Amino acid sequence: MKTYTVHFLPADVSVDVEEGTTLAEAAQRVDVFINNLCGGEGVCGKCRVQVSKGRAEAEEHARGFFSPDELMKGYVLACQTPVHDDLEIVIPPESRMEDSKIMIGGATEETGKIELKPIVKKIYLELPPPTTEDNVPDIERISRELRKQFGWHAFDIPLDCLQNLSDKLRQNDWKITVTLARKGDGYRILKIEPLDTSHANYGVAVDVGTTTVVVQLVDMNSGRVLGSEGCHNQQASYGEDVISRVIFACGKGGLEPVQKAVIKNINQLIRKVCKEKDVPIDDINALVAAGNTTMSHFLLGLSPCSIRLDPYVPTADEFPQIRAEEIGIQINPRGILQTIPCVASYVGGDIVAGVMSCGIPEHEEVRGLIDIGTNGEIAIGNKDWLVCCSASAGPAFEGGGTRCGMRAIKGAIEKVVIAEGGLEYQTIGNARPRGICGSGLIDCIYELVKNGIIDPGGKFHRDRSDDRLRIEENIPEYVIAFPDETESGAAVVITESDIDNLLKSKGAVFAAIKSLTDYIGLGFDMIETFYVAGGFGNYLDISKSIAIGLLPDLPREKIQFIGNSSLTGARMSLLSESAMETCVNISRSMTNIELSTYQPFTDEYIAALFLPHTNRKLFPSVAY
Amino acid sequence: MKTYTVHFLPADVSVDVEEGTTLAEAAQRVDVFINNLCGGEGVCGKCRVQVSKGRAEAEEHARGFFSPDELMKGYVLACQTPVHDDLEIVIPPESRMEDSKIMIGGATEETGKIELKPIVKKIYLELPPPTTEDNVPDIERISRELRKQFGWHAFDIPLDCLQNLSDKLRQNDWKITVTLARKGDGYRILKIEPLDTSHANYGVAVDVGTTTVVVQLVDMNSGRVLGSEGCHNQQASYGEDVISRVIFACGKGGLEPVQKAVIKNINQLIRKVCKEKDVPIDDINALVAAGNTTMSHFLLGLSPCSIRLDPYVPTADEFPQIRAEEIGIQINPRGILQTIPCVASYVGGDIVAGVMSCGIPEHEEVRGLIDIGTNGEIAIGNKDWLVCCSASAGPAFEGGGTRCGMRAIKGAIEKVVIAEGGLEYQTIGNARPRGICGSGLIDCIYELVKNGIIDPGGKFHRDRSDDRLRIEENIPEYVIAFPDETESGAAVVITESDIDNLLKSKGAVFAAIKSLTDYIGLGFDMIETFYVAGGFGNYLDISKSIAIGLLPDLPREKIQFIGNSSLTGARMSLLSESAMETCVNISRSMTNIELSTYQPFTDEYIAALFLPHTNRKLFPSVAY
Repeated sequence: MKTYTVHFLPADVSVDVEEGTTLAEAAQRVDVFINNLCGGEGVCGKCRVQVSKGRAEAEEHARGFFSPDELMKGYVLACQTPVHDDLEIVIPPESRMEDSKIMIGGATEETGKIELKPIVKKIYLELPPPTTEDNVPDIERISRELRKQFGWHAFDIPLDCLQNLSDKLRQNDWKITVTLARKGDGYRILKIEPLDTSHANYGVAVDVGTTTVVVQLVDMNSGRVLGSEGCHNQQASYGEDVISRVIFACGKGGLEPVQKAVIKNINQLIRKVCKEKDVPIDDINALVAAGNTTMSHFLLGLSPCSIRLDPYVPTADEFPQIRAEEIGIQINPRGILQTIPCVASYVGGDIVAGVMSCGIPEHEEVRGLIDIGTNGEIAIGNKDWLVCCSASAGPAFEGGGTRCGMRAIKGAIEKVVIAEGGLEYQTIGNARPRGICGSGLIDCIYELVKNGIIDPGGKFHRDRSDDRLRIEENIPEYVIAFPDETESGAAVVITESDIDNLLKSKGAVFAAIKSLTDYIGLGFDMIETFYVAGGFGNYLDISKSIAIGLLPDLPREKIQFIGNSSLTGARMSLLSESAMETCVNISRSMTNIELSTYQPFTDEYIAALFLPHTNRKLFPSVAY
Repeated sequence: MKTYTVHFLPADVSVDVEEGTTLAEAAQRVDVFINNLCGGEGVCGKCRVQVSKGRAEAEEHARGFFSPDELMKGYVLACQTPVHDDLEIVIPPESRMEDSKIMIGGATEETGKIELKPIVKKIYLELPPPTTEDNVPDIERISRELRKQFGWHAFDIPLDCLQNLSDKLRQNDWKITVTLARKGDGYRILKIEPLDTSHANYGVAVDVGTTTVVVQLVDMNSGRVLGSEGCHNQQASYGEDVISRVIFACGKGGLEPVQKAVIKNINQLIRKVCKEKDVPIDDINALVAAGNTTMSHFLLGLSPCSIRLDPYVPTADEFPQIRAEEIGIQINPRGILQTIPCVASYVGGDIVAGVMSCGIPEHEEVRGLIDIGTNGEIAIGNKDWLVCCSASAGPAFEGGGTRCGMRAIKGAIEKVVIAEGGLEYQTIGNARPRGICGSGLIDCIYELVKNGIIDPGGKFHRDRSDDRLRIEENIPEYVIAFPDETESGAAVVITESDIDNLLKSKGAVFAAIKSLTDYIGLGFDMIETFYVAGGFGNYLDISKSIAIGLLPDLPREKIQFIGNSSLTGARMSLLSESAMETCVNISRSMTNIELSTYQPFTDEYIAALFLPHTNRKLFPSVAY
């Protein structure tokens, strides 16, 4: 079969591919990331690239995405264009996926009040050599010492730890370091090394998000966070949202590339943070991963297909502790991977980790956690009970489903204020605007309704005289950034249909919160603290979020941003056996309310498709 | 490097080897077995072969083993002769290792009164498909059913059993077969197969003896023994006895070839018995192995080096349950290997399995087990206590350490009677005599002392007139078979120094029995039953064994032959969780008396170097 060379600009990277390979596949092989919302189906039009050298033509059905001028200039969709020539491809700014503003940390890197007892420990032992009176087997000499010093019992010992043990002990004067992992009710010995290596025991917490993957390197001896790194989840090449990726994995594409994509991400991030912090990768002995149920299935190579089909059954909600290398994660070859357990198909380990990290199951008072992303997951409870639910919020808060929506990366408008003097915005990285991210969209809606530009139903007052208000093909839109201000030269706008999508998203989240509190018979006022987590948590204007009816109208001090609580929870579980145990208990005891079959949710949802809400009594503090 | 072809006769097998390879190594590569007592050190002279074509010369120091005539005929020691030419090698009968009479079974193939609950079970499940009301994860649906039907908890599930589970369930109408192994306090799921495969669940019990390896194929659903196969332990190429093999493994040779040799044996035997019984190897899900402590270490690839050095410490006495394929054993790739635990360096899993199989820990009455081989191991106890010890008996009972000694294979003299009319013998397979095996030697000594040919100290009455009594270089010897009767044309004799060795062997065994009973303050009469096991157990004349002072002088009905009790115990442990548990309890609770540091043993040993014993009161029934 013939091969051709494709050269990507501005990345300046080349790849040789077989004839017929799509440009999207070619880009992916050399880690050139191109936007892709639909998973390569050719329907979102987000993977626009320009053929600057060589011959390549967009397939017929893809031409509708381009103006005649663009077609002349060689624009094609990367996912629909097969390679039949040596090519030079320019990826325009709007099609690039960049890692410039991944939300990394939790609100704090302090791990809080947990007892430092990491799930993998290194114990240095100086053993008494055997004598005629004390000639127990070598391995018993070790486990006896561990029993004596720590009271630990029930050791599971892999065969390879016994092989060569005899020489190791005798050649090193009976001085060894034992690495053990908590497993079930006992301990598993991972490795036995000569002499004292106990100082080098690192772990990695991973938040496997649908949009981003974040790792945090931790010294398991001190509990200190050494560094963090994040990147976009490369699975986006197979679909922007969870469902498109499941469709890809369960269809033509198969599970393997989707699994490999995220493992490649994790390996790259680990290498990067280890290099920066000068920590040998081989000294990483444990990895704790938290992700939603589908992400956890992808990570472990479990079939996600039944998760999206009624009655929404995952393969597992508790996951075995494995050697990380079993799935290709590159840490110490004996190092383990523990994935935080899930509750149900749509309430995953990220929520379990979050609930644990907020200490919800430890207190008498009722507390709530809300994690806003493509899904809004809500958990409420105290030390006696825990309930949760999940509502599909749609992609609007993550930049999908709106004309100029984009993720929270460089060039995204993240703040908008409309005051008497006009409209002001702020972009991530102070770059020229490329689109609007979730927090920017929430601001827009608030500013539009507050300033009477749209009505509480989300419709524009069409008769209003405003330079920014335009009506195109009978659909009104509002200009946030004019063409001369933007990177691409096209206006950044918010349309009436965008607003409609956003109302649906915020309506779903609020209806879920309301349904859950009603289900358990609690008023909002009974909730002592509401923790808000999520990929845009750090950039979210809490007052505006209440004002548009996304969050309940509670006193501001009762709402706390906690950022990436999934990562915080994963880190705590890495550092504390009891935190990990709490996660298991949460996953087993939390009751999941299936909203799709819970009739009141539908009514609440419809009532919430209004600004701030059909029932204004629910939002007494909202003034517009 | 140059290679040459070596052709072995009468096996008619060729092998290409690099220049410098020894004939012994060449033979081993193609499974041509040549006797070898010293482990290739060139000191035992048992690997004599004849170079019939090509040039090869014995090394200078090895020439002493041959007569000038033999040197002329091309005789060399296989272990000392490097290949520097294409060769044809004739292996004479006395140097061949043949598998013609391996003692295979226990006294019975009935497994007795154990509850049939094999350590690996296959359970066929027809699961209710998920509904909206019952949408637990797939794996929970399985474990819930196992809990419900059997009350089993705590499942350990390898990741690969979860991968593809979703499809497996849905494509097979929720009908699956789960294979589980007992592990610790819970169960480990080994595999999950579509539809009902529960009928096919086989196991293999293995007795890993120093001299022979025996496997027994068992249907784990019915408990029935389907067939057995045995062969010589190929490790003999690295040394006839345990100590020579340890020296080889801890020296120049390394552990690996010794481990591989026995694994090759086991694989060959499994293939053979499976082929005969038409059982697919892939349907074997479990293997239970019993062997002495050193054999267990070799099998698992654990260093045996410290076992033979004061204070005699093994790497482990309990062994992890592993996948059999981890050490290269070819059964189902998910199948497990469990090695029966040991008590101490010189009381191994073979004794533990034996003690369990006799039911010693189940009864009020005191019972004893004696296993006679290179070591004599003795265990005594009841349901409240267990003690054991081990004495080095030397190789005499297994055919080593005597001029014409050989193992119990074809051509070995196994019975001898000297009556008034002369001497009569019987050989294994009714072949022409090649040597004398252990039971034959015991008969000889008894007949010699009873007929006044030797005195109770084991010395010949040199002045006696007897055609068979010869004195060569001042050492008297007694002809059992004259040159014209034997296969090799040389007489089969027993020498005074052979008798001396046999007295030492029987003295050590008896002294061990006596020391142990004295240690616990019991007379022989307090022992209800004495079980005798061992590689020659089935061919041993019990009355003559008492008469020479090897076994205590108990009423005959109190002594029971049980043959290969190690194999019986392994089979029971394969078929019964509680039998396996009993083995673990025995290994933990049995007290080992270290005879090497127990002063009374030395006195007992010296007192026992007499026929039947220095203290005749101990043998009231012995008449000569």
